[in-house]
Amino acid sequence: MSNTKLRGVIAAVATPVNEDGSPDVVRATKLARYLVDNGCDGLNVLGTTGEATSFSLDERKRVMSAYRDAKLPLDRMMVGTGAAATADAVALTRYASELGFAGALVLPPFYYKGVPEEGLFRFFSEVVQRVGDDRLRVYLYHIPPVSAVPITHKLVERLLKAYPKQIAGMKDSADDWAHTKSMIDAFAKEGFDVFSGNEKPLIDNIKSGGAGCISATANINPGKIAETYKKYATPEGEKLQGWINEVRGVMQGYVMIPALKYVVAHYGGDAAWTPVRPPLVETAEAQGKDMIAKLDKLGFTMPGLKQAMAVAAE
Amino acid sequence: MSNTKLRGVIAAVATPVNEDGSPDVVRATKLARYLVDNGCDGLNVLGTTGEATSFSLDERKRVMSAYRDAKLPLDRMMVGTGAAATADAVALTRYASELGFAGALVLPPFYYKGVPEEGLFRFFSEVVQRVGDDRLRVYLYHIPPVSAVPITHKLVERLLKAYPKQIAGMKDSADDWAHTKSMIDAFAKEGFDVFSGNEKPLIDNIKSGGAGCISATANINPGKIAETYKKYATPEGEKLQGWINEVRGVMQGYVMIPALKYVVAHYGGDAAWTPVRPPLVETAEAQGKDMIAKLDKLGFTMPGLKQAMAVAAE
Repeated sequence: MSNTKLRGVIAAVATPVNEDGSPDVVRATKLARYLVDNGCDGLNVLGTTGEATSFSLDERKRVMSAYRDAKLPLDRMMVGTGAAATADAVALTRYASELGFAGALVLPPFYYKGVPEEGLFRFFSEVVQRVGDDRLRVYLYHIPPVSAVPITHKLVERLLKAYPKQIAGMKDSADDWAHTKSMIDAFAKEGFDVFSGNEKPLIDNIKSGGAGCISATANINPGKIAETYKKYATPEGEKLQGWINEVRGVMQGYVMIPALKYVVAHYGGDAAWTPVRPPLVETAEAQGKDMIAKLDKLGFTMPGLKQAMAVAAE
Repeated sequence: MSNTKLRGVIAAVATPVNEDGSPDVVRATKLARYLVDNGCDGLNVLGTTGEATSFSLDERKRVMSAYRDAKLPLDRMMVGTGAAATADAVALTRYASELGFAGALVLPPFYYKGVPEEGLFRFFSEVVQRVGDDRLRVYLYHIPPVSAVPITHKLVERLLKAYPKQIAGMKDSADDWAHTKSMIDAFAKEGFDVFSGNEKPLIDNIKSGGAGCISATANINPGKIAETYKKYATPEGEKLQGWINEVRGVMQGYVMIPALKYVVAHYGGDAAWTPVRPPLVETAEAQGKDMIAKLDKLGFTMPGLKQAMAVAAE
């Protein structure tokens, strides 16, 4: 892995799919390029928004390789490598490390529920030890509304003590600012980088000593979220925060992952962006039109997306 | 797949693990043999109790191949082939079909929660269509306390209509007899075989037109559960049902999967049976002793297990 510190606005980038259900790496890397060219400090590849767990191990590796082949700046990217099976999480994290991604965003194993802290500690320990790369940087992925397996303060404390170098931070997608703040207050002083799971508390995050946000909505709104981050200490930043929250508010009225793909398809002029993998279902046309009307009303655009999508594959 | 109808008492067989965390196929197939020789009508390999989702695709295939190599009666077995990724579920189900397992027990994709019925319908459709084997028999795996993704009546109805041959039945592990009965009442007449997810309602299941039970506790109590099934219409059967429920009651006081392995290790005289994969943790010694004392008090034994475990590997 690269040892660049990840910071700021990171888009949890969506993964387009081919007709046969496999990841469409050509479109995927075009969106990735667009996002880094339009304000994102980094990307989170193959997270929840990237439908990582809906792809096989080989498919996930193929997406990771495509990023490398497209010469995207992997030192500004973390990649989701969590899995229900420890062996899979180890294999994916090792591959991320070998390719030079800046970090690995690791879900806890998410099939069994109500599992003991010791079991989760062993899972993350096995990942760190079996990858065995000093440069490995693990970000713990707390997303109880989806995984239903929380990462507790006590677990973070134990992992930081055991692997102070490798345990680099957290993505907190509990959508509860008080929880994120408690993680920052407890662990930021040890160099543990806490990212909010969306941009709604971005300014609060930065002012409190957090590392920024990793956001699904940054797939469609990278520029303004990045601007909010840069101007966080100014009245203009506060105003921008209000506007990006309005955009997020519109998106939250729909099922987020297919809705984001619908928006990319719409502003990118490329209908091939709409499909999702089961168990998700693409946005219905009537809902999509309704959503776009609401975004248009806010003055929302995705400048340059059409051109970015039209570039020939490398 | 084989076209034998699965019926009766099916053990959700545990998977022992080697020191490196991989499945111990030698011990696995010895327990499987013991269970079919001691009353089980069939086995459910690599279910929740078998820690299937804690193993990689290759590891799961290795366990399946080992059953074939050990010449176990695959026509009396279903194997868990569900996965978060459709491509994995397809690959595993196809492999089960090729090897000649009687059925595939398929979990819904279990990462995303609150997903639409249409998304689950597409998942199961893709499995059936891409495997493309007329002999395929799919058992739907309803286990909301673990998967957190329920299989609804409406979904069963749609799937039965679309794939009347391939959709063979359900394992209902909601631990709610009223729910199981509602599935039997709704679909048994169409040849849909509803198994209770444990033996507690075994006699009720059979009397109501269900197909039997698929049980974790049948790993340790196969003989008496099988006897209950055979004598279900007699007063002796009712008495046996009471006793097997007492044994189950003891086990429910502990974390089931490690507790079952502890019991097998104890009565089989083979400590190598105790480990589990993360995120589970093996039974602590004090708890294990307490559990064995309670089982002994009930007159519980595992006759012949030591000898079965001592047999040289094939």
